[in-house]
Amino acid sequence: MNAPPRTATTFAPPVMEARRWLEGVTFPPDRPLINVSQAAPVDPPPEPMRQAMAEALLTDPASHLYGPVLGLPDLREEVAARWSAAYGGHLAPGEVAITSGCNQAYTAALSTLCAEGDEVILPVPYYFNHRMWHDMAGIRTIPLETGAGLIPDPERAAALITDRTRAIVLVSPNNPGGAEYPAGTVRAFLKLARSRGIALIVDETYRDFDSRTGAPHDLFADPDWRDTLIHLYSFSKAFRLTGHRVGAMIASRTRLTEAEKFLDTVTICPSQIGQRGALWGLRNLGQWVAGERAEILDRRAAMEEGFARLEPLGWRLLGCGAYFAYAEHPHPLPSPELAQRLVREAGVLLLPGTMFRPAGDAAGARQVRIAFANVDRAGIAALMDRLAGFAA
Amino acid sequence: MNAPPRTATTFAPPVMEARRWLEGVTFPPDRPLINVSQAAPVDPPPEPMRQAMAEALLTDPASHLYGPVLGLPDLREEVAARWSAAYGGHLAPGEVAITSGCNQAYTAALSTLCAEGDEVILPVPYYFNHRMWHDMAGIRTIPLETGAGLIPDPERAAALITDRTRAIVLVSPNNPGGAEYPAGTVRAFLKLARSRGIALIVDETYRDFDSRTGAPHDLFADPDWRDTLIHLYSFSKAFRLTGHRVGAMIASRTRLTEAEKFLDTVTICPSQIGQRGALWGLRNLGQWVAGERAEILDRRAAMEEGFARLEPLGWRLLGCGAYFAYAEHPHPLPSPELAQRLVREAGVLLLPGTMFRPAGDAAGARQVRIAFANVDRAGIAALMDRLAGFAA
Repeated sequence: MNAPPRTATTFAPPVMEARRWLEGVTFPPDRPLINVSQAAPVDPPPEPMRQAMAEALLTDPASHLYGPVLGLPDLREEVAARWSAAYGGHLAPGEVAITSGCNQAYTAALSTLCAEGDEVILPVPYYFNHRMWHDMAGIRTIPLETGAGLIPDPERAAALITDRTRAIVLVSPNNPGGAEYPAGTVRAFLKLARSRGIALIVDETYRDFDSRTGAPHDLFADPDWRDTLIHLYSFSKAFRLTGHRVGAMIASRTRLTEAEKFLDTVTICPSQIGQRGALWGLRNLGQWVAGERAEILDRRAAMEEGFARLEPLGWRLLGCGAYFAYAEHPHPLPSPELAQRLVREAGVLLLPGTMFRPAGDAAGARQVRIAFANVDRAGIAALMDRLAGFAA
Repeated sequence: MNAPPRTATTFAPPVMEARRWLEGVTFPPDRPLINVSQAAPVDPPPEPMRQAMAEALLTDPASHLYGPVLGLPDLREEVAARWSAAYGGHLAPGEVAITSGCNQAYTAALSTLCAEGDEVILPVPYYFNHRMWHDMAGIRTIPLETGAGLIPDPERAAALITDRTRAIVLVSPNNPGGAEYPAGTVRAFLKLARSRGIALIVDETYRDFDSRTGAPHDLFADPDWRDTLIHLYSFSKAFRLTGHRVGAMIASRTRLTEAEKFLDTVTICPSQIGQRGALWGLRNLGQWVAGERAEILDRRAAMEEGFARLEPLGWRLLGCGAYFAYAEHPHPLPSPELAQRLVREAGVLLLPGTMFRPAGDAAGARQVRIAFANVDRAGIAALMDRLAGFAA
């Protein structure tokens, strides 16, 4: 019997699947759809940035042509300088790679670490594309149950490490859980990974919306960070560049030389205009991003207030931060059915917890993710009314 | 002993390696570098296209945001309609996926076909990124020696098929060989693949520069093409969109649903502005591309004339078409050393045949690829002078 091809080993993209639940459903004008399924801006970048990008298309021929596999040298330099300042460390431009989005950075990083049958430890609930890549790359996902506040415990992780383990993955602020991992936890994970000779991947896609001020961890201040740490980032959220596909991977030069093989083979180079947008954003949008962060933090507060109303009805907020609230629902329905009924009966599209956990795991059926970043205070109030009013 | 990680199973990107040969070398003003290493336009797209793309960035918010994994619906529809007309077949928009370049289309296609240890038949010389993906995906490359004119023979391929074979790959016009595969050969490969229950991948990245008029093959006219055929295309060459990463994969809906898992996980969606550029190009640049093709065909004629001068010196032109000439050199040096000496002593950067063949294969040491698309008639004359004047 032949093994099934790689794509047959994983599930359909959850966001596309959820989008299909909307087909054939009409939403009355007085109760329009509230879509809290995807973690993505719905507005374009600020006008001066769009102008700068348009100008580049018109006047800079290189914005249309192949560039280096590991990214635009100016952008790599800008990231290195800003990250060095922000994290209190010393990052060289040669330790920064630009990728076609952060998902690609993840797939490239794991390709430098794993062979068929290797293992990667992933806190649950997890980001579904991480799990999908593991499946397709022949990597065994070792789920790490999280505790209070959806924070993973390094001691619990230590017990899961085998001679096939190649990495532990942390996403902070977390997708889907919203948890901001304490600096001490992240440091303890670095220590654990280093002591066992495996990599620590820290995906900070939602870093710009962390409620804490200052660096969220001090790993880059460790002079030996290169032996263990791989940091991932996305320009998509802070600058609303989702359609341009720009992310980053920070790691040792040796690892980036390995990643270059994968990136060259899969896309040759990142979008040149996206990279120019990201560079312009880093140089000009600091204040604007600070305003965006304040708005997201206000929405997060609105979510927490809203959940105070839902908790007497049996809802329980497990985590809330960045773009996400992750919660337990009180209904007898499993979450995939609940989610589809919420579309039809309450005009709410959220994702069931089953999409963020291993198949057959019972907890997922009781959980949901709400990606609230695009919903303002009035919308969040309406969302809470609809969730409170829904009876299964 | 643990298996090495995926990236350790393959070689460094040849184009990046060749670029490093330029480091520290100065080229005198009277003998500037002639770079025939990469198959890529060096000029930006025509001005009206740049204007249209800039306009989209300024006025179309969706050009900055996530879009469907399988691509912009209007672009899928345009491709389906134009390919149907060009190939005399019936392609539906749902049978077209847009990808982040054609390399990504290849990796996605193979991910729907292969598991670890499966085999894919690849005519040699091959496109190095195809080989690199095989290595990293755990696919065994089964080299298929080509005959006169670098044309592969279906009967020879038939003898290589085992119960692990999942696909045969054809690239026409060929990179690196320049060969335009006869329609009858392509059809015979479809028949072979179908009879053995494997896929036929036909990569037509350089289709727009084929010297033949009309459809280069009739596979889409076969009402059952979906059971066997996967067609790949790139918008990078015809429209000079290399920096925007837009390619395409045409296959059955079932296969595209599988490919969607891979594409979502690796990049979420193709560049929105690149897709808008490709759509504008298809609708407006037909005449312009015809002019580009005429220019490339004239350069190809100049290459053939130039080789008539080189052949008495022991050079032999094995294939010439689209962007490429592939030739045997007369020097005692193996081609990687020859290539590096040509940089320093003749100001010519070309790629050694070893980059396009399995390691240890002796033929590669005697062969080179010349990507001539960016060199005009005068430049080609200078190139020939330099190759003729070089003594190892």
